[in-house]
Amino acid sequence: MLTSRLAQDPALAPLVPRLAFALEIDRLKGVERRTWLADGSRRENSAEHSWHIATLALVLADLAPPGTDVDRVVRMLLVHDLVEIDAGDTFAFDAVGLTDRDARERLAADRLYALIPGGERLRALWEEFDAGETPDARYANALDRLAPLLLNLATEGGTWREHGVQRSAVRRRMAPIASGLAAIWPAVQAAIDDAVDAGWVGPD
Amino acid sequence: MLTSRLAQDPALAPLVPRLAFALEIDRLKGVERRTWLADGSRRENSAEHSWHIATLALVLADLAPPGTDVDRVVRMLLVHDLVEIDAGDTFAFDAVGLTDRDARERLAADRLYALIPGGERLRALWEEFDAGETPDARYANALDRLAPLLLNLATEGGTWREHGVQRSAVRRRMAPIASGLAAIWPAVQAAIDDAVDAGWVGPD
Repeated sequence: MLTSRLAQDPALAPLVPRLAFALEIDRLKGVERRTWLADGSRRENSAEHSWHIATLALVLADLAPPGTDVDRVVRMLLVHDLVEIDAGDTFAFDAVGLTDRDARERLAADRLYALIPGGERLRALWEEFDAGETPDARYANALDRLAPLLLNLATEGGTWREHGVQRSAVRRRMAPIASGLAAIWPAVQAAIDDAVDAGWVGPD
Repeated sequence: MLTSRLAQDPALAPLVPRLAFALEIDRLKGVERRTWLADGSRRENSAEHSWHIATLALVLADLAPPGTDVDRVVRMLLVHDLVEIDAGDTFAFDAVGLTDRDARERLAADRLYALIPGGERLRALWEEFDAGETPDARYANALDRLAPLLLNLATEGGTWREHGVQRSAVRRRMAPIASGLAAIWPAVQAAIDDAVDAGWVGPD
């Protein structure tokens, strides 16, 4: 697959699935999200977004809920969007796309996590993230919501303004921050109200 | 800074440096590396590269040297390129750029890691990575070399071919893999020889 000596040498062949997986996940860099970079130059992709929030998990670690295992959260965030390699990114305010998102992502997980030994451990982290019920998953989901909020604030409303999103919808979308990053929730509410005042978010 | 209510509320003001830092590090998504994506569509940036190798640290964890703390390595890799926000990426085979890289990166670290509480802990991880002497740093550096190798193999020589790089230079560049990911070193040597046979790397 990769190169001829590698594939032919029985001592090296067991490495091939893992090296092939390393190239497979490179495709996440090509999955475009709606969110704009803070400098407004282009939309971000799911790989750099995953880096961003995994790093924020470290930067905001002292604000995580008691009992959070920050290293587990980081692992969770590194793999939380891998299914998008097959399923694509589904925009948060896209009601139609969201209806079949779960089915598409499960299919993607069935394929991707079967490619490497130990894949089921990574899959379990994604499933825990997706369920959003454990303290680790709550902190992880809060970070996944906080980053696009900050980017929308930095780009004068960003995707909110583009899609005419209302205050109630932004609040619902940001609700995981209330439980997963409670220390920041008042700041998030204030920022949303500021965005309404600025005309970036509808007042409803 | 971010929005007016945030900056004015004394209860929320302490959060501002951290939220500003979250936007500051977004700039890493705009730092272009020389390496091409596996599909050859564009060069990668340092943020998505950091995601890639942090995730590989999980995928290849069972091949890490005994005593490696994989979660520490992941943290190290998430921040290992942050200094490039100010210092830019220095191409591995650029002898001129490499001469003042350390000074530029130290200046960047002085500024960036002072922006947030606890920044010195993240800086220590970067310094450990850069020194490359601990088992954790050796595994981290091996991953940082392995990813561009795989991407160059996937793009028919990629930056090696673009810059007419010779076998001896690639081997020197990949040497950290011999100590940090020893199980993969024979595969790396085989892949380099294959790349020479294919005409992607010079034979010297």
